Amino acid sequence: MADQAPPFSRIVANLPAAVPFVPPEELERKTGVKVRLRLGANESSFGMSPLAREAMENSLGENHLYGDALSLDLKMELATRHGIATEMITVAGGIDELLGWIARVFLNPGDPVTASLGSYPTFHYHVEGFGGRLHKVPYRGGKNDLDALAETARNTGSRIVYLANPDNPTGTWFTAAELKEFRRQLPADCLLLLDEAYLEFAPAAAHLPLDPADPGVIRTRTFSKAYGMAGLRIGYAFAQREIITAFDKIRNHFGVSRIAQIGALAALQDERFLQHVVEEVAAGRREYETLAETLGFAAYPSATNFVAIDTGDADRAAAIQDALWQRGVFIRVPGVAPLNRCLRVSVGTPGERQEFARILRKVMAEL
Amino acid sequence: MADQAPPFSRIVANLPAAVPFVPPEELERKTGVKVRLRLGANESSFGMSPLAREAMENSLGENHLYGDALSLDLKMELATRHGIATEMITVAGGIDELLGWIARVFLNPGDPVTASLGSYPTFHYHVEGFGGRLHKVPYRGGKNDLDALAETARNTGSRIVYLANPDNPTGTWFTAAELKEFRRQLPADCLLLLDEAYLEFAPAAAHLPLDPADPGVIRTRTFSKAYGMAGLRIGYAFAQREIITAFDKIRNHFGVSRIAQIGALAALQDERFLQHVVEEVAAGRREYETLAETLGFAAYPSATNFVAIDTGDADRAAAIQDALWQRGVFIRVPGVAPLNRCLRVSVGTPGERQEFARILRKVMAEL
Repeated sequence: MADQAPPFSRIVANLPAAVPFVPPEELERKTGVKVRLRLGANESSFGMSPLAREAMENSLGENHLYGDALSLDLKMELATRHGIATEMITVAGGIDELLGWIARVFLNPGDPVTASLGSYPTFHYHVEGFGGRLHKVPYRGGKNDLDALAETARNTGSRIVYLANPDNPTGTWFTAAELKEFRRQLPADCLLLLDEAYLEFAPAAAHLPLDPADPGVIRTRTFSKAYGMAGLRIGYAFAQREIITAFDKIRNHFGVSRIAQIGALAALQDERFLQHVVEEVAAGRREYETLAETLGFAAYPSATNFVAIDTGDADRAAAIQDALWQRGVFIRVPGVAPLNRCLRVSVGTPGERQEFARILRKVMAEL
Repeated sequence: MADQAPPFSRIVANLPAAVPFVPPEELERKTGVKVRLRLGANESSFGMSPLAREAMENSLGENHLYGDALSLDLKMELATRHGIATEMITVAGGIDELLGWIARVFLNPGDPVTASLGSYPTFHYHVEGFGGRLHKVPYRGGKNDLDALAETARNTGSRIVYLANPDNPTGTWFTAAELKEFRRQLPADCLLLLDEAYLEFAPAAAHLPLDPADPGVIRTRTFSKAYGMAGLRIGYAFAQREIITAFDKIRNHFGVSRIAQIGALAALQDERFLQHVVEEVAAGRREYETLAETLGFAAYPSATNFVAIDTGDADRAAAIQDALWQRGVFIRVPGVAPLNRCLRVSVGTPGERQEFARILRKVMAEL
């Protein structure tokens, strides 16, 4: 018998032991703190549609059956709503899984990729996990620097450029016109990966119209945010047929749970609930902006379900985060400068927001 | 704008358009047949534990929250039950997902892998998906040919050898003593991937004791079969710490749904229910064996929740499968000779079994 594990692949052997995010449960275990305000993962405090809940409850007796490997009912509903063919849609276990598929389909080891410095860590994680080389472009004025991203993509021969619109962790956004211009600036053989996880919260001007004729764009969407189904793991993407077919060659075909497919399909029917969440979140953002102002901080303009509050100093942000955590308040501070000056706070319910404001004021008075 | 999609990775560009299994929903859509007896995917007709159902129902209001990325509550329960450290366990979205992780962690493009010809297609799919080269060893006498598998693994320098115990699609199994001898015959640097999806249905003699000192074995388990949770997508694996750490470098960290974690943890508490399912399935297997006999067919001895009925001829098996399908009965016929002479039928409830027997007899009388 050998005394060590069989050798790992070259890529895996060279990977650092890094996780994109430590979950709040693990932070609780490590620190002994019990979270009472969970505002750090941009989960929806407004929960999911009662129609989704009912459909899922009614399906509890079906969990012994695999879900449809094609998620076709859901794809048909999405196709109808967005006016595109089902062959241009794929359904996955959330955007995180989609980002892994995209890295795998488009990257050979060593291939260059462009993304903003401090953008979604899980995308960086999957690119590195498939041996890609990340070129990171600093944010400028709290926004993704589109000109610099396009220039870097061109200069490095990037296979993929990643852009979240609206953005995480800043919450800022671009108009469809700005995105179109950005798309025009990219090399013809570079994929634009447009992560639209938060799009439901954004103004209409941020919605880039779908262009089925453009083969170089993938748009990822999710039921985790506005639909309040983060725990269920379901998201989708729009892309050209050839790309969807490539996903079908590598994806875990039965990977999306039956109950998530059922819940998501029902959630799409409840536009009133979605509208209610979007309005509540907008009200919450305004509250956070006012709160930030009264504390002498600036808030980034947000089109998402969170607000990044700029404390002006990374040490200060870390101290506030720590003091909040000791009081059971879970928020995030982005890991990379200059965004590490910010407190990223998810919009909670009115009660949660009031409680957060009370604790933050207390923390600020004590620091 | 480009007129075609950005280029795919070398591996993906060379992959055939193949899916491991066409789901029954897709077969329904393609043929216009409505399935009324779903006995082709080894789902558990006995459903899941009422304790699991209750726990999941009580958690329906939590679906807006991501699950614990470490699944630690579940890992702790599994660790206690199996007497090993939590660091030797990983939790995934079913064994299918685990098979993908394993191929990715252990294979460079072109690396050899050994498996039985006609063994689990999803394993083959993932090996090919990461560019591995499969060496396939024919079944012998309806069982995996352990000597030939070990010899092929040695001769090819295989990085992984795959063995399901009990086996799918035959249902046959080996004793712990036979498995130990097989393990001894493998090269020191070859991983033994022991897929134990159906182990709960097998006699005690089939349970290879866990050996935490052996770094060359991964054992995969699932809640899809005996626990009746196929639709929820949750499984786990035991392996050496170094391997579990490697999985953590590449896996989709928040990929296991919260409701699946909650359901699985509750299901483990209900040993009576599990015992009930195992007994029902054993009774069902005996019924299928008798049914096969009365039709002049042989049934493979099974330690799973299905029985492979050998019709003696591939064309006959295909004709029977087709006639059953036309009557709304979904079973599988393995794709590869000589197993393609078999009808693989999942054990249904007593009522389903009676109905299956009635229809199969009618089909046989008409053919």
